[in-house]
Amino acid sequence: MMISPIFFIFFVTLSSCYAAVQDFCVADYTAPQGPAGYSCKNPAAVTVDDFVYSALGVPGNTSNSNKLGVTAAFDSQFPGLNGLGLSMVRVDMAVGGVGPLHIHRGASELILLVQGTIKAGFIASDNTVYIQTLKQGDLMILPQGLLHFQKNIGDTPALIFASFDSPNPSVQILELALFQNDLPTELISEVTFIDTAEIKKLKGLFGGTN
Amino acid sequence: MMISPIFFIFFVTLSSCYAAVQDFCVADYTAPQGPAGYSCKNPAAVTVDDFVYSALGVPGNTSNSNKLGVTAAFDSQFPGLNGLGLSMVRVDMAVGGVGPLHIHRGASELILLVQGTIKAGFIASDNTVYIQTLKQGDLMILPQGLLHFQKNIGDTPALIFASFDSPNPSVQILELALFQNDLPTELISEVTFIDTAEIKKLKGLFGGTN
Amino acid sequence: MMISPIFFIFFVTLSSCYAAVQDFCVADYTAPQGPAGYSCKNPAAVTVDDFVYSALGVPGNTSNSNKLGVTAAFDSQFPGLNGLGLSMVRVDMAVGGVGPLHIHRGASELILLVQGTIKAGFIASDNTVYIQTLKQGDLMILPQGLLHFQKNIGDTPALIFASFDSPNPSVQILELALFQNDLPTELISEVTFIDTAEIKKLKGLFGGTN
Amino acid sequence: MMISPIFFIFFVTLSSCYAAVQDFCVADYTAPQGPAGYSCKNPAAVTVDDFVYSALGVPGNTSNSNKLGVTAAFDSQFPGLNGLGLSMVRVDMAVGGVGPLHIHRGASELILLVQGTIKAGFIASDNTVYIQTLKQGDLMILPQGLLHFQKNIGDTPALIFASFDSPNPSVQILELALFQNDLPTELISEVTFIDTAEIKKLKGLFGGTN
Amino acid sequence: MMISPIFFIFFVTLSSCYAAVQDFCVADYTAPQGPAGYSCKNPAAVTVDDFVYSALGVPGNTSNSNKLGVTAAFDSQFPGLNGLGLSMVRVDMAVGGVGPLHIHRGASELILLVQGTIKAGFIASDNTVYIQTLKQGDLMILPQGLLHFQKNIGDTPALIFASFDSPNPSVQILELALFQNDLPTELISEVTFIDTAEIKKLKGLFGGTN
Amino acid sequence: MMISPIFFIFFVTLSSCYAAVQDFCVADYTAPQGPAGYSCKNPAAVTVDDFVYSALGVPGNTSNSNKLGVTAAFDSQFPGLNGLGLSMVRVDMAVGGVGPLHIHRGASELILLVQGTIKAGFIASDNTVYIQTLKQGDLMILPQGLLHFQKNIGDTPALIFASFDSPNPSVQILELALFQNDLPTELISEVTFIDTAEIKKLKGLFGGTN
Repeated sequence: MMISPIFFIFFVTLSSCYAAVQDFCVADYTAPQGPAGYSCKNPAAVTVDDFVYSALGVPGNTSNSNKLGVTAAFDSQFPGLNGLGLSMVRVDMAVGGVGPLHIHRGASELILLVQGTIKAGFIASDNTVYIQTLKQGDLMILPQGLLHFQKNIGDTPALIFASFDSPNPSVQILELALFQNDLPTELISEVTFIDTAEIKKLKGLFGGTN
Repeated sequence: MMISPIFFIFFVTLSSCYAAVQDFCVADYTAPQGPAGYSCKNPAAVTVDDFVYSALGVPGNTSNSNKLGVTAAFDSQFPGLNGLGLSMVRVDMAVGGVGPLHIHRGASELILLVQGTIKAGFIASDNTVYIQTLKQGDLMILPQGLLHFQKNIGDTPALIFASFDSPNPSVQILELALFQNDLPTELISEVTFIDTAEIKKLKGLFGGTN
Repeated sequence: MMISPIFFIFFVTLSSCYAAVQDFCVADYTAPQGPAGYSCKNPAAVTVDDFVYSALGVPGNTSNSNKLGVTAAFDSQFPGLNGLGLSMVRVDMAVGGVGPLHIHRGASELILLVQGTIKAGFIASDNTVYIQTLKQGDLMILPQGLLHFQKNIGDTPALIFASFDSPNPSVQILELALFQNDLPTELISEVTFIDTAEIKKLKGLFGGTN
Repeated sequence: MMISPIFFIFFVTLSSCYAAVQDFCVADYTAPQGPAGYSCKNPAAVTVDDFVYSALGVPGNTSNSNKLGVTAAFDSQFPGLNGLGLSMVRVDMAVGGVGPLHIHRGASELILLVQGTIKAGFIASDNTVYIQTLKQGDLMILPQGLLHFQKNIGDTPALIFASFDSPNPSVQILELALFQNDLPTELISEVTFIDTAEIKKLKGLFGGTN
Repeated sequence: MMISPIFFIFFVTLSSCYAAVQDFCVADYTAPQGPAGYSCKNPAAVTVDDFVYSALGVPGNTSNSNKLGVTAAFDSQFPGLNGLGLSMVRVDMAVGGVGPLHIHRGASELILLVQGTIKAGFIASDNTVYIQTLKQGDLMILPQGLLHFQKNIGDTPALIFASFDSPNPSVQILELALFQNDLPTELISEVTFIDTAEIKKLKGLFGGTN
Repeated sequence: MMISPIFFIFFVTLSSCYAAVQDFCVADYTAPQGPAGYSCKNPAAVTVDDFVYSALGVPGNTSNSNKLGVTAAFDSQFPGLNGLGLSMVRVDMAVGGVGPLHIHRGASELILLVQGTIKAGFIASDNTVYIQTLKQGDLMILPQGLLHFQKNIGDTPALIFASFDSPNPSVQILELALFQNDLPTELISEVTFIDTAEIKKLKGLFGGTN
């Protein structure tokens, strides 16, 4: 069928009106970053690959002391997330694996347990612990800004996908924050009440100094 | 009257304190764009013209199949809107004109009918239709993210000004999204249940391929 | 055509999943109000009338000292606006009419001049004035939180529709804030440098006391 | 070790200071709902069960014309999500299953393909289609407010978990919005350009009237 | 001076238009609370006392093991803060006093040191420590969601006022979160690497169980 | 203690995942500014000095007609505030000092009176004045976008620290907005009802023209 010329008039006008409005802001890692995220890639250079990310399809390496592998899909790796309110991590836990106590900056986390059996919990600011055993297919919501943890309590590996309501939820892992830093041991003891000998031992383990 | 020197001390101090704080962020179209909008023009180069836009004073061309003219004042045309929460379109509808089903990305729309008589409506996510005949001076609010449409049902041209709570509400027009794209006809049929012959006919009309 | 039973299974399941999610939150003026707005009316009781508002179709009364009529469509009158980011006022200005200096709480304003010729302007925080003559069809954006004003400078009535990016932008009118209150005249003079005699005179005019 | 009385003084003081601050706002479905979500359940009545949801562990029923099962975990079913920025759906697709074109109100969606091989895509507002074949473990981000779809193109069932950056992203399914409503067929045709015979046929199929 | 009747017409009209719009939402502690805060007190019942809070004028009791007194002005004590983006705590530190490691849910903190000399610091998510000695009058900003601490290192009491960009920033104190809860000691050890003997000792001190 | 090699594997993996996520966005004053703030300084160049600001430790000069000294810590002076929701000003008031009527763009203000006795107040949009005498240690919250003022009513200097829920709350001072601009006197009179002679006198005092 022939395209009627009057169709053209209408839609070309519309197109030129809206041409510069972006539906998305794919990260351009080479331009300045601001409080709201990375600068936007030129839309003409955006392809579907910017919106797809495959690294979470590969199991993380769990050959470490926590028996834990964590792979992130944040806006710093996955440019299509830039400026949007979502990101994800894949967490592989070998038998006995442990997700250490940690927090995320201003982001809530929605855990989806895809395989295995874990205990997961968070600690509220009145020190109440909300903990439960999760089985395959369960969701658990961890409200923003509270310490939380997971442990594989089953006899098979566990696999978690955790969503965040931020494209870049930083992760502060307590054992590293405390024992992989260069704060004087004495000061750490004063602000945590943990014994200096214990701190020194763990600094040795995690590579902290002072 | 002479200006007392002690007045000066106070206010010069204040001015230097606040000098770099901007009351607005007029778009600089030559610098990087981020998730929150365009970079800000140097305030020293901003003039009142950045805050005024005259293109909506001119009727849109309605000599097309929808008998519809749409003129936008988004941040991509009107630099003073950048970073603020407002924009507007002018919609001219000849007698019998139709505003096709469409949605805006995350923005609500407040219709003001300045001339004529139209039917306007939106479809809620439970498929209920909220539709009403509007007369001159009526407002209708279209809550964000729902398909909506207008039709001139009077015997004179209709004129609408529609406000949005975003400086750049993209516009997704259903008939173009479906029939001006390059998605295979078979796939469009599967995801819409519309017959392939009908899709092919409309692709022909709107310039879609495949 | 008969409806296949297997269609039913799918969509009923979907409907029950999403049933309690609301596409809008129409104001229920009889229930508690919170920082984000009014409570939501039961969706089953919502009708299209909640989304339509006709009071702006009627010219405001300009038989007053400012020759100004202002009619608001805020969420307190127009329940469909509740929780959304938009509202509007109609401003009628007789010949010589003046829109006094005022501000809105945290909302920007987009002026659309539908009839007449006005001067409109705003004062930035460095006391620069951005002022311009607007003709029919012009838009002017007034960035949030800055004093602004309008004046009908033509020889016909002027008609403005102004949009706000808030459902309830409070309006603080300077002449009333200063002269229709019960603050002691002496104190007003100290915080504005306006002479006490002038303040007393204007308090008399506007109904202020003390 | 004995607890020193002076420890008590400090922490009791702290506790009383912060006692009324809530770390979360679990939905109380019996109290008023506002624009920001449901009212909060009394924190004393909150248990860990409010933060855990098991319905996504069960495959959805795919015995329907789309060969599609969708199970939602929104704040209307899962009270711990209330007021936070996350929710999720489980999507089961039998062989040949299709996720029809749809949009979400103001929410982006992050697809995680847990099993199978699908094609997924979204249509931008300039009618460009971003489409890709996803394999197990792939993520795809669908920027907010754009029409999107999925299709199982493999020879095994596919399983998707999709996260949203909203606790209640309404779902507008195009085929239902168009053909399960009571809008006059003639009007639907005018706002979509789809032929009236085609619309009538699909209204018959989906239960629309008029 | 007599009030001209035409003044009345204009301003009464305006007043009735805007009457129901609230400039603030003072907390009504007896009505439902939602994700955005407490319900609003009836504006007619609001007085200036709702906007003033005096408890921070009194030094906190520092006779405890941390030599620390903390007094909060959050929306749960100070109703005028409800729905706004600010709150404050007063922190008194006796000589040698310590503010233990803690975090706030999604809020940044701006420390103002009014008296004394302290060391204050925060730990970034890459375990870098940003620490500095502050003297009277110094400000330090602690970006949201990161562990931070203070210590009085002078030979006089120290006094801090800390502002938050939230009306209710919950406070999670690490030593209490770890040692005043009922999580099994063994599990705490697994998620922190701290030795079980050390944990049992500190649970004894802080009143934790298990 | 030796560091076990398997510790390394786990944490190096984690580090690389999160490396590019920023916990903060310290202002880079040399790069483009956008609606959300300044561009971020390269994190590798950030030091603790970016988070500390000392200028508020110095009393402001009150040798002026208002007997007022104001020193600001906004993101334009204090780079660590960039992108966060907080800033502060120090206000010194000599005996009899007056903080003139002013507003802030979209920011609330939390006053802390550190020394002296003041009267502080704000004017609501219905022209009700909320005013109270504050004594040392009192807080007063000034809801966003309303005219407010302070006056030292004691016989000693007063010292205020005021927090804002914005990193850059612009300050519009009424007496300067009215009398330090170049708006024609006649127009100012029309939009404020203040007599032209009074305006001319004050323009002379404050340096306004026309």
